Amino acid sequence: MAQAGTRNWTRRRTAKRERLEAVRPFTSGRVLDPGRVPEALQALLRPGDRVALEGDNQKQADFLAAALAGCDPDAVHGLHLLISSISLPEHLDVFERGVARRLDFAYAGPQSVRMAQLLADGKVEVGAIHTYVELYARMFVDLIPNVALLCAEQADREGNLYTGPSTEDTPTIAEAAAFSDGVTVVQVNELVDKVPRVDIPGDWVDLIVESPRPFAMEPLFTRDPRHIGQVEIVMAMMALRGIYERHAVTTLNHGIGYDTAAIELILPTYGEELGLRGKICKHWTLNPHPTLIPAIESGWVESVHCFGGEPGTERYVAARPDVFFTGGDGSLRSNRVLCQLAGQYAVDMFIGSSLQIDADANSSTVTEGRLTGFGGAPNMGHDARGRRHPSPTWLDLLTGEAPVVRGRKLVVQITQTFRAGGTPAFVESLDAIQVGKDAGMPVPPIMIYGDDVTHVVTEEGVAYLYKAAGPAERREAVAAIAGATPVGRHIDQRRVDALRRDGLVALPEDLRVDVRRAKRSLLAARSVEDLVAWSGGLYDPPARFRTW
Amino acid sequence: MAQAGTRNWTRRRTAKRERLEAVRPFTSGRVLDPGRVPEALQALLRPGDRVALEGDNQKQADFLAAALAGCDPDAVHGLHLLISSISLPEHLDVFERGVARRLDFAYAGPQSVRMAQLLADGKVEVGAIHTYVELYARMFVDLIPNVALLCAEQADREGNLYTGPSTEDTPTIAEAAAFSDGVTVVQVNELVDKVPRVDIPGDWVDLIVESPRPFAMEPLFTRDPRHIGQVEIVMAMMALRGIYERHAVTTLNHGIGYDTAAIELILPTYGEELGLRGKICKHWTLNPHPTLIPAIESGWVESVHCFGGEPGTERYVAARPDVFFTGGDGSLRSNRVLCQLAGQYAVDMFIGSSLQIDADANSSTVTEGRLTGFGGAPNMGHDARGRRHPSPTWLDLLTGEAPVVRGRKLVVQITQTFRAGGTPAFVESLDAIQVGKDAGMPVPPIMIYGDDVTHVVTEEGVAYLYKAAGPAERREAVAAIAGATPVGRHIDQRRVDALRRDGLVALPEDLRVDVRRAKRSLLAARSVEDLVAWSGGLYDPPARFRTW
Repeated sequence: MAQAGTRNWTRRRTAKRERLEAVRPFTSGRVLDPGRVPEALQALLRPGDRVALEGDNQKQADFLAAALAGCDPDAVHGLHLLISSISLPEHLDVFERGVARRLDFAYAGPQSVRMAQLLADGKVEVGAIHTYVELYARMFVDLIPNVALLCAEQADREGNLYTGPSTEDTPTIAEAAAFSDGVTVVQVNELVDKVPRVDIPGDWVDLIVESPRPFAMEPLFTRDPRHIGQVEIVMAMMALRGIYERHAVTTLNHGIGYDTAAIELILPTYGEELGLRGKICKHWTLNPHPTLIPAIESGWVESVHCFGGEPGTERYVAARPDVFFTGGDGSLRSNRVLCQLAGQYAVDMFIGSSLQIDADANSSTVTEGRLTGFGGAPNMGHDARGRRHPSPTWLDLLTGEAPVVRGRKLVVQITQTFRAGGTPAFVESLDAIQVGKDAGMPVPPIMIYGDDVTHVVTEEGVAYLYKAAGPAERREAVAAIAGATPVGRHIDQRRVDALRRDGLVALPEDLRVDVRRAKRSLLAARSVEDLVAWSGGLYDPPARFRTW
Repeated sequence: MAQAGTRNWTRRRTAKRERLEAVRPFTSGRVLDPGRVPEALQALLRPGDRVALEGDNQKQADFLAAALAGCDPDAVHGLHLLISSISLPEHLDVFERGVARRLDFAYAGPQSVRMAQLLADGKVEVGAIHTYVELYARMFVDLIPNVALLCAEQADREGNLYTGPSTEDTPTIAEAAAFSDGVTVVQVNELVDKVPRVDIPGDWVDLIVESPRPFAMEPLFTRDPRHIGQVEIVMAMMALRGIYERHAVTTLNHGIGYDTAAIELILPTYGEELGLRGKICKHWTLNPHPTLIPAIESGWVESVHCFGGEPGTERYVAARPDVFFTGGDGSLRSNRVLCQLAGQYAVDMFIGSSLQIDADANSSTVTEGRLTGFGGAPNMGHDARGRRHPSPTWLDLLTGEAPVVRGRKLVVQITQTFRAGGTPAFVESLDAIQVGKDAGMPVPPIMIYGDDVTHVVTEEGVAYLYKAAGPAERREAVAAIAGATPVGRHIDQRRVDALRRDGLVALPEDLRVDVRRAKRSLLAARSVEDLVAWSGGLYDPPARFRTW
């Protein structure tokens, strides 16, 4: 009956031993010679390997990426690259040079034009485009990595890693590789005798190398209040009254952008005036947004859990440990998977800016024919049907027919009706549809599905889509706030009035929002310098944001 | 403008220092005197504290739970307990004695009768009932713990923890507490000089105590093949042909129970005969089910990622590292949050047994008027609307109207039409509805929502609910396979034939399943002894399963 004993069950373990043996000429203990990393990678890797390269939303294992791109394609080829974010030229050099062939990823913003070219040239085969946590989930199922190339601030000689504030995705990728007899290689900014705290235990780490330069990291979540104008402010006022106050939103996530930055900046002014402090916006899942500093300093914010860090906020965060998750060393501990889990299941509202919305409220950040991918929004921007615990906010959107009723997550899209340059944000067909077709994708790359969206905010008003009786009424509610765009221009004024009466649409006056007050003076901070002042000098903005 | 400096931002850190100072009389370094744990907890805890007590689906911090229950309610009272699974009498003693008052949890199976009594007596206030990952998610948002009481196999004197195969939920709870200036206390089976691998770094751990007895852990996932009969086998055959083979399911999760155990046990026989090896069931997210051993040994299974361990499977798992996630020490590394993430986003099918299903295919494991909670199923048993990567299986259930189409997760419920004792599994109203009403729950405690269910399997046949044009047709398809139950007995035979023609229902003959072959001889293992033989003697079943 049983066939036990006839098969080799330790192939991966044996391969790992052989790989580590092959790199021994380039190491001393766990430490790799930085000058010999390309050779070491060539010795370590085997054609066809599945390689998880840490290219997160923020931090980048750039030294290892460059070394990988520099491998001899005769020795290393046909790799299958798993990477969150295609952000650096080296990420695509790897394909152009034939070192890698297959790609599974989540986001390709800055490199999306070149990627389209490589796709067209047949230099890269895309497995799928994921939201971040899906890609990590698959590393434990059908995309288990053979090798992980990671990045951290410091390591000791036993391989214990200190990530500092940008823990981000490192523990998750390390876990996938370390416990499947994969090889983990980590570039660190500094090799030290003792790390200030252990973010990842040394016995999960096989090889470490001191990078000649600190790893690259972009201040993705920093928005200069100088660029926030009256339109963003009026939208923020309407969102605050029409959504945050109305549904008593205490737990939330804010996406990146000036629209949500404006909301953060009117909490200590307009929000305070409305008496909302302590009633809304208490628990957050988001990166340390500098524009949240005034609200934190004014006592609005009880807690913030972060996906990753943000350059310049290190000292500020370290000085606010009652609010931010910090370690024994005093600095931020972030964790993308746990923050995404929190953003999906523990917060009642997701609000994000959209670049394009169609008549059914489907939205996408794909524009101008480029395949950018998904990032993190789809995981938070949907009604989490696995949720079972109620909250007053969630119950406020009660849905379904008795006896099976349930609450609903608030998924809010916010945008001006026209983007810069007069391009309509509301369109008859999303660019994403065509991009998906052109790229041969089996389903179109929609970022947020219309039937998951509960509210849309524009400078015209708020649409309460969750109240719509069906798709037709939902389309009318979208049209009512879509202004002079192709989606909005045909709706009849009497129909708009009826929707207002029925509570499906609210204009500023319906929300008692005085648009004349939508001035920059309503912003708690009007410049980065103001943010620094609010922080008591603890916020250190990156050079590009310093104008004084 | 700025109010920086006027507020104390380090209250939690200060409180932690004071708490640790207060327990110093009972410690030597990080090590607590086991004889003085109740006193130490009394010194550590403050009235109203939020305490995360590790009571997982499997392992139990039972020594600390007993110490907590033994605290003097004059000194420690009004605690808010966060616990996955109310499994031990001590978990409720804590409330009966007034030490704790508020409770947020996920599952209360064995203690559900007593819990109902405590609720009725006003001794416990339930915040909410969650699915596991929701409860953890909230530990990073609005339920941040002040103290975490955890459990591991071993610790060294620096607090580095070795969990062995049952890592389960410990890293997640530890992370929530350790990085929010909470205090982490860990009971370990053994204090050692050096742990065989580090599952949780020592600097996340404040206090460790050697428990007089190893922590309790139940073999929840062990099913004796002796109890699998012809009905389970015929259902397994239909599931295999009508679902696994038809949709080419390669990535999946199996719930607990004899129904899915039967499927596992006919893979090497019936599945082999159908030529399905290598085509289905390659990548799994589930605990080390002993009934999966024959399929693993026969080469069906490429990988298994586990929520937790299973007593008796330790040596077997350690000998199969190509299949299971294992550490440098050779033993399993499990992780509930990551496995739930994988189960939600990376696998194409969830299949689980249900105790009750209503006419709309809503299902629940609540029966006999008891509030048991949710456990892990809701997270995996729903269509993950945040998913964006396609797979052939997911695309096979394409849904929606062009241009916005998407695939769908297979959510399968399997049950006989009548349970033991002649109780119908298909009912007009779920017991859960009444239980929810009686307990004053704002929404009824449905385990899996009918509109998320894609297939239902009974001994009568398979219903393909995802093909139904609407709720009415879905009800007909459910009725067609619900046999002589109140849900099934009124459907007309001609209607059933029409549903078969339209592909909404398949009977055994439609699937070319010869029910005469549904005999125990089709099981690859017919006893626990057989499983041991399949494992080459590596599986060590717990005493209660040893009958030889």
